[in-house]
Amino acid sequence: MSSSATTEVTGQEHVWSVSEHLDDILGSVRPLEPIELQLLDAQGCVLVEDVTVPVSLPPFDNSSMDGYAVRVADIAGASEEFPAVLTVIGDVAAGQGEQPTVGAGEAARIMTGAPLPPGAEAVVPVEWTDGGLGEGPVSGMRAHSAAPDGAFGEVRVHRPAEARAHVRARGSDVQAGDRALAAGTVLGAPQIGLLAAIGRGTVKVRPRPRVVVMSTGSELIQPGEELAKGQIYDSNSFSLTAAAREAGAIAYRVGAVADDAETLRSTIEDQLIRADLIVTTGGVSVGAYDVVKEALSSVGDEDEAGSGIEFRKLAMQPGKPQGFGSIGPDHTPLLALPGNPVSSYVSFEIFVRPAVRALMGLPDVHRPTARAVLSADKALTSPKGKRQFLRGQYDAEAGSVRPVGGAGSHLVAALAHANALIVVPEDTASVEPGADVEVVLLG
Amino acid sequence: MSSSATTEVTGQEHVWSVSEHLDDILGSVRPLEPIELQLLDAQGCVLVEDVTVPVSLPPFDNSSMDGYAVRVADIAGASEEFPAVLTVIGDVAAGQGEQPTVGAGEAARIMTGAPLPPGAEAVVPVEWTDGGLGEGPVSGMRAHSAAPDGAFGEVRVHRPAEARAHVRARGSDVQAGDRALAAGTVLGAPQIGLLAAIGRGTVKVRPRPRVVVMSTGSELIQPGEELAKGQIYDSNSFSLTAAAREAGAIAYRVGAVADDAETLRSTIEDQLIRADLIVTTGGVSVGAYDVVKEALSSVGDEDEAGSGIEFRKLAMQPGKPQGFGSIGPDHTPLLALPGNPVSSYVSFEIFVRPAVRALMGLPDVHRPTARAVLSADKALTSPKGKRQFLRGQYDAEAGSVRPVGGAGSHLVAALAHANALIVVPEDTASVEPGADVEVVLLG
Repeated sequence: MSSSATTEVTGQEHVWSVSEHLDDILGSVRPLEPIELQLLDAQGCVLVEDVTVPVSLPPFDNSSMDGYAVRVADIAGASEEFPAVLTVIGDVAAGQGEQPTVGAGEAARIMTGAPLPPGAEAVVPVEWTDGGLGEGPVSGMRAHSAAPDGAFGEVRVHRPAEARAHVRARGSDVQAGDRALAAGTVLGAPQIGLLAAIGRGTVKVRPRPRVVVMSTGSELIQPGEELAKGQIYDSNSFSLTAAAREAGAIAYRVGAVADDAETLRSTIEDQLIRADLIVTTGGVSVGAYDVVKEALSSVGDEDEAGSGIEFRKLAMQPGKPQGFGSIGPDHTPLLALPGNPVSSYVSFEIFVRPAVRALMGLPDVHRPTARAVLSADKALTSPKGKRQFLRGQYDAEAGSVRPVGGAGSHLVAALAHANALIVVPEDTASVEPGADVEVVLLG
Repeated sequence: MSSSATTEVTGQEHVWSVSEHLDDILGSVRPLEPIELQLLDAQGCVLVEDVTVPVSLPPFDNSSMDGYAVRVADIAGASEEFPAVLTVIGDVAAGQGEQPTVGAGEAARIMTGAPLPPGAEAVVPVEWTDGGLGEGPVSGMRAHSAAPDGAFGEVRVHRPAEARAHVRARGSDVQAGDRALAAGTVLGAPQIGLLAAIGRGTVKVRPRPRVVVMSTGSELIQPGEELAKGQIYDSNSFSLTAAAREAGAIAYRVGAVADDAETLRSTIEDQLIRADLIVTTGGVSVGAYDVVKEALSSVGDEDEAGSGIEFRKLAMQPGKPQGFGSIGPDHTPLLALPGNPVSSYVSFEIFVRPAVRALMGLPDVHRPTARAVLSADKALTSPKGKRQFLRGQYDAEAGSVRPVGGAGSHLVAALAHANALIVVPEDTASVEPGADVEVVLLG
């Protein structure tokens, strides 16, 4: 925490800018300790070690074609009219331990990927031969199981080849000692493929953070149940669990906790064991039943620097009330978001997503942004001094964005039809149609 | 299957274009049957029903602020100097079943989201009052647990308010009967939030396809083991399992199967039970040990139209030999990709990914593409008549792309440093530096 904003009910509080709050979060959240994971468990994670190639790839000279391994002199000047006739001394299949030695006037039938046998200097593709059938050029080999005699007899070669033709040299992809991947690489499918190819079964990465999501509010019931008077459905724990997964986390949805400080406190303490980050929604404002605020002031270990949760007002709309800090013996970071569904989702995108990605050690923690021309019927108005995030439909092709729904922070239906957030800066009170605006691109 | 390409070893085969092969795949693969899933299990899936709002949101008039629910006439003309003094008759918290009725000269302390109590016409934010403390304006309420008397006594209101001020009207977000989401919507976090908010606990979507990935080759061993002579590490089953997940599938890695038709056949038959799609790598070319080709000709039920696997040559580099068809009693689609790691990965991106996304019913099955200026030291050459896919590093800001590694299809290290595929069309044999090229953007 870099400040001590007061939560007194009287007096002037410090109002935090979006950037100050975000800087405080990113300045406090440390990447998770690396662990060794099986390759496929490391997908999407950040490598923390430079990975060196232990053995050159390919590990041996091998054929890039199905064909015949030959000596170059034997096929010099060969043509379809005057083929070179060679004695086939056997097959060289991929994965076969022993290879025959190819002598003068001889050829070994060889498969793609199989080691170039001793004595051979080049490979001629089967299409350049009669495939041992004694007729014209063929387009492939007959299966060994159906025609085992194809591994012997004679083959007519119709074209010459240079030394090393259709041979992939040992180490032509990577050399032993090369750096295969640098620390900081995000492991996608091709990187996992490379690690497997060089023989790495496990790899050291920062794990995906475990994010525990809970909403608070005595009015909340589970979707699918019957609404009683004064109740609404819990949606935040669903949308933010989904958003946390989308950000790369392993997310646990706890669901809705009633507005009772003791219940909330014990629920959080229970969950600490499986949390690298805790996200709550609701109970952070200035009301008399804002239980998150009430409960979390006593969970923090006040003897420890940087422990405890601080509640703030932000110069932001939606998303004014926010809590941030750390709790429990491991100083688990906790972000307490406002309870309104749109406020909590916008707060997640702007603050929690970067925190999740910082825990993963990802190089770029923010959503991509773009500039767009505002396409609207009338000017957008925004409270002076606040950064406003409006829901918008961004059209990449046209380079334009159209607001969806109004500024009301409860318009969850509009949010579900948006693909971007339109950012109206603090110093701007009005944006005219046709003006250039910044948009945050969602997913 | 739209053609009967021959697999005879002699004679001229039909060579398929990339587009023909892709059209054949997308013309054959049908979206999976929809199932009802729990909301969070439906993340990333495509909705197959129009979802109608069963109950208006918000379901009741409620407060958008922490403050006091009042009658408008009682606070007309109020100022800090001449406040309106009202009797506080109790609290209205969110989720509270019973509300007090607000009479003339009275106010109920109300929390954000709580129902507007009978009699009240507007809400004044707590910051516009003395919070019942008898001093100046306050910035918030004291917690009910610490100061239960805050729910009673007197409050001084410093500003007037119009009727409905700070009241969110019932149905102002969505009205019962409105269409919340249309069939075909992909469910991300905000859409899941909306479904939860309107009370939907489950939703009907097309499930994620289960993709079984197996590589074939007697030379393949598991990463982490010791390489013996002639062996290489299996990388395809890892990279393609990761790629299948990235495409949205639930992927099962079977690993490497030896080049034995009977083993391969029984492995595939075993896996059919959990497969919506099977992907194999290797064994599809013209060699004598190309076991996929050999084994799969007898798995197809030849009595059924559209069953059986067809092996083809494509006018494509890398990725020339390809197999496609369906097998087993459910006509499970199977794509047999070439065994070279780069060929198999490119084939996956170009053919399997669209198939996975077609199974999900996604509207757009292809990777995004872009135009870019070729940044290279010399011209790219490409075999005439083939569509070539080169690995490239795309720079979105500069709008340029630089080739990574050579055209050799075994350069798995180069692939791991690419973020795009450079497409060289069939009719182009050479691309000069500075020329405009199409790139397929990878992830």
